[in-house]
Amino acid sequence: MSGAGRRALVVFSGGQDSTTCLYWAMDRFGADRVIALTFDYGQRHRIELEAAADVAEHAGVEHVELPIDTFAALGGNALVDERVAIEAPDGEEGELPSTFVPGRNLVFLTFAAAYAYQSGIADLVTGVAQTDYSGYPDCREATLEALRRALSLGMEYDFALHTPLMFLSKRETVELAVSLGALPALALSHTCYEGRRPPCGKCPACVLRARGFAEAGVADPLLAAP
Amino acid sequence: MSGAGRRALVVFSGGQDSTTCLYWAMDRFGADRVIALTFDYGQRHRIELEAAADVAEHAGVEHVELPIDTFAALGGNALVDERVAIEAPDGEEGELPSTFVPGRNLVFLTFAAAYAYQSGIADLVTGVAQTDYSGYPDCREATLEALRRALSLGMEYDFALHTPLMFLSKRETVELAVSLGALPALALSHTCYEGRRPPCGKCPACVLRARGFAEAGVADPLLAAP
Repeated sequence: MSGAGRRALVVFSGGQDSTTCLYWAMDRFGADRVIALTFDYGQRHRIELEAAADVAEHAGVEHVELPIDTFAALGGNALVDERVAIEAPDGEEGELPSTFVPGRNLVFLTFAAAYAYQSGIADLVTGVAQTDYSGYPDCREATLEALRRALSLGMEYDFALHTPLMFLSKRETVELAVSLGALPALALSHTCYEGRRPPCGKCPACVLRARGFAEAGVADPLLAAP
Repeated sequence: MSGAGRRALVVFSGGQDSTTCLYWAMDRFGADRVIALTFDYGQRHRIELEAAADVAEHAGVEHVELPIDTFAALGGNALVDERVAIEAPDGEEGELPSTFVPGRNLVFLTFAAAYAYQSGIADLVTGVAQTDYSGYPDCREATLEALRRALSLGMEYDFALHTPLMFLSKRETVELAVSLGALPALALSHTCYEGRRPPCGKCPACVLRARGFAEAGVADPLLAAP
């Protein structure tokens, strides 16, 4: 099915995955029919929001920012709460990373659907993936399909929920970005959990990003950026 | 199944339906095992939040308030946007009331689930109903079941989503409140869309509440309140 004539809303953090998804949506729907939606939910590092604005401007797409003050009020996770250390799970069965914000993607997609509903947009795009690097249960296909159903029933609107990275490895995500011409935009994207630019290179997010580029045999343009 | 030993989180607006649900949960789980969760989402009338606090205090249950600033940023509906008139749908097929906030109950329940997850609570209670008076598609059982599945998968936590009013008429909801001893609390509850106390008696919410009490042959204690 072609995306011609339709418009798409991309849940857009300004990171590697959502930047790749943005270019996927531009390729499929046309740059003038894509909106990038970024949530200001109290991220520790404002650099993420700046990166999102920079990438959207570079891509030439409309960029919308919406606030969510609820996660900070909930607290208790490393992405919004400075008292919680950023740690990958130590491998114990069923343990979730300290960066797990319960329901984060569900909330993002529900607000995205509300914005899309008001704008007459039925196509939602998100960069979640359930492959080797996720660890977040709200990124899995079964979760997303249940949510798509809840959103469509709850708003009486037949949403499509596109997850172009769902079954890609990090290597394949880099290869997709290359094929879509997204590398220059990825120089502006932000991944590091420590909020550093140049990136710290040591946090779980930096390590994961570096591995994907290494496996694809592609130099990460972020590391060459001034 | 008895609720003994478990705790429950009630999505609690301070209105008639959620007050009845609060007493339902107290009866089932015990007052000291129930938390009432109220969202400050930019309601036009602060009296709703005051009513919620008053009812929770009267009931003797723990009361938590969480902010959501996103709906006001989205705008476009009568409950948070003063530029939109409060109107019932004029009966045209498929039309939704101007008070429809897209995704509101989905967002409320997702944040409730996030709070419950962090507190080790698996039982969520909400006063939504799909019977004669709703008109909101996010109040229907199929929507709620899809959402319960998304929440449980997305947080790897087996939530139960209790909807004691789902198939009750307004009359039956009043009868349930009487049987649970909730009438004195209902004197403190708030329903009027116009934010008036005593209530305006003319808005769709007032008319609906009055009809339920009339059909049950019970005097609304709110109207006798000082």
